[in-house]
Amino acid sequence: MSSVARLYPSRIAALRSKMKENDVDALVVSATSDMLYLIGRKLPNTERFNALILGQTGNPYLVVPELQYPLVASLAENAEIITWAETTDPIRVASDLLHRLDARSVAVDGLMRGAFLLRLQERVGRQVRFSDGTPLTAQVRLLKDADEIARLADAGGRFDAIWEAFWKNGRLVGVSEREVVEQIRKLLFAHGFDTMEWCDVGSGPNGASPLHHHSDRIIQPGDPVVIDFAGTIGGYFMDTCRTPVAGTPLPEFIEIHEITRKAHEAANERARPGVAAGDVDQAARDVIAKAGYGERFMHRLGHGLGLDAHEEPYIIAANRLRLQPGMVYSNEPGIYIDGKWGVRIEDIILMTSDGARSLNSATRDLVSMN
Amino acid sequence: MSSVARLYPSRIAALRSKMKENDVDALVVSATSDMLYLIGRKLPNTERFNALILGQTGNPYLVVPELQYPLVASLAENAEIITWAETTDPIRVASDLLHRLDARSVAVDGLMRGAFLLRLQERVGRQVRFSDGTPLTAQVRLLKDADEIARLADAGGRFDAIWEAFWKNGRLVGVSEREVVEQIRKLLFAHGFDTMEWCDVGSGPNGASPLHHHSDRIIQPGDPVVIDFAGTIGGYFMDTCRTPVAGTPLPEFIEIHEITRKAHEAANERARPGVAAGDVDQAARDVIAKAGYGERFMHRLGHGLGLDAHEEPYIIAANRLRLQPGMVYSNEPGIYIDGKWGVRIEDIILMTSDGARSLNSATRDLVSMN
Repeated sequence: MSSVARLYPSRIAALRSKMKENDVDALVVSATSDMLYLIGRKLPNTERFNALILGQTGNPYLVVPELQYPLVASLAENAEIITWAETTDPIRVASDLLHRLDARSVAVDGLMRGAFLLRLQERVGRQVRFSDGTPLTAQVRLLKDADEIARLADAGGRFDAIWEAFWKNGRLVGVSEREVVEQIRKLLFAHGFDTMEWCDVGSGPNGASPLHHHSDRIIQPGDPVVIDFAGTIGGYFMDTCRTPVAGTPLPEFIEIHEITRKAHEAANERARPGVAAGDVDQAARDVIAKAGYGERFMHRLGHGLGLDAHEEPYIIAANRLRLQPGMVYSNEPGIYIDGKWGVRIEDIILMTSDGARSLNSATRDLVSMN
Repeated sequence: MSSVARLYPSRIAALRSKMKENDVDALVVSATSDMLYLIGRKLPNTERFNALILGQTGNPYLVVPELQYPLVASLAENAEIITWAETTDPIRVASDLLHRLDARSVAVDGLMRGAFLLRLQERVGRQVRFSDGTPLTAQVRLLKDADEIARLADAGGRFDAIWEAFWKNGRLVGVSEREVVEQIRKLLFAHGFDTMEWCDVGSGPNGASPLHHHSDRIIQPGDPVVIDFAGTIGGYFMDTCRTPVAGTPLPEFIEIHEITRKAHEAANERARPGVAAGDVDQAARDVIAKAGYGERFMHRLGHGLGLDAHEEPYIIAANRLRLQPGMVYSNEPGIYIDGKWGVRIEDIILMTSDGARSLNSATRDLVSMN
């Protein structure tokens, strides 16, 4: 988990080119996924201010609490590290650096704590314009580089192994949703993940709500069970969903599972470089609508993922962003029948010049479990 | 985990009285711990905007994505719930509500995503003054009510049971720090915690850095092992630290462990209603300084905790805040000897009219383990 901090010059260069295009003089990145992207490790995101400050040129600045200097010592050759003691105001330090950069237009990372942003705004004064840096960083981060693709593919393969182990040794019939969470949790950590970010288990009627997390409900024979879980490894997310059945499935469920599987496939067939994200959403939606369940697929098809669970590209009707090789996103159509059950099938997709490549190969066929 | 949302009228009333004192017309609370405090559940903190908006009087407003209406449906009698569809701009909805409240001075929760805050500022325009709501909410949240104290005491008792089980069945000698994390993780979930928030394991020289998380280092006989872990249950944090020894401790370590234990006790003896937080820090620091290790205790004594891992009251030299019954904070002195080892002993303390009461009763004596 704790890797050595290092600057990623090509990522910083790409970001600076977006800064120039957008007339942003300085970017302030707090201890969030953007920082992890740029220096390879996330500093603690607490009430203690940490920031990477980038001007359009020159060495980056790092503002860190004195105690945390060891976490960034490896950057000392390529960045100017300014530590602050518990009695000094780190916001003043950051503000002085923005002044040194003569920054009139400052972007901040979109996840920066509001409290830090307000203090920074107050300190530098109204003549400086603040904006959300997400559009800049998102444009860079949504094209994964080779290192990132390797990490995501590795995480995807581990998820395949987790599903495989779950199909073989997991239990559904007669256990609670919460116990299924514990089965998945054990598998996640046994397969090297650093965190479990969520594990939603919706059995029978609970599966009809895409919002359901898990409960003490005991899973009954015949129940479909929506199982959606995510974890991180080295900061990168993986996130998939399958809907196995406890025991023997009812014919009606076999049918909607198959429709969902076809919607998932249709989205992958539609997806290729140059196609708008919204059109990929539409391809899945068409399959479900044609089968008469259009109203029962009430969420977007997917979201990008990488160092955040949800990031660009969002696969949603209104998004006209065109897919490009290197983009990574979820393809997760679902059908939800109130009072009865739900089904969702989710893989993480890497866009390549040849089209959609799933980073997951766990079967998308209906699985029946004990 | 998923409890039904309900308004807490006394908490809202207390907050409104702080708003009035500070001439704050409206408070915008996003999907953070402040929201959990006010409505008993945390909405998903994602790129989808959720907010509770409080004027000085009247029913609160809730702005939530359409899909998430079921999460707050139980509030419909006492709050005005406004849902937004994926094609509408929720920031405009929030801005219209602030306009309806005729708000000139708006506070936001300190953890609100910078991206939301910037959009809100832009939408309402420069005539509205924004400020950090943390000083208001912190003043209310730092006095725990009976329900919160019961939850924290329950969590503390569970931690005692975890330590007890760890002393008995845990392993240190010959296992890696990472394997210790897995032992603790299993115990946390077995004892009903919803999340493990961290587990830092610093064996031998790794324990000399208060920043160390864990590594693959194999624990050697004689190594002290700093074990600091935290989890949440129903949103409330518990967080303790002990420093057992693998096998037989060296005399020098027995000595610094004892100094640390005495520092912890001195802080509890000093703490009572009316005493400044900084003086409690000083009481522990005096013990360590007198023993000649003053320079080796390089962090604050503690932090408040509740629905956040770190919140008021911070137990740090500069904090002149006077302790009051109902405050909850960590007491965690440490001594760190470069290249050799570290020691830290941490309990969570509830301030009562009679003085400090620890919510943890796991032994603070030096424990030797296999």
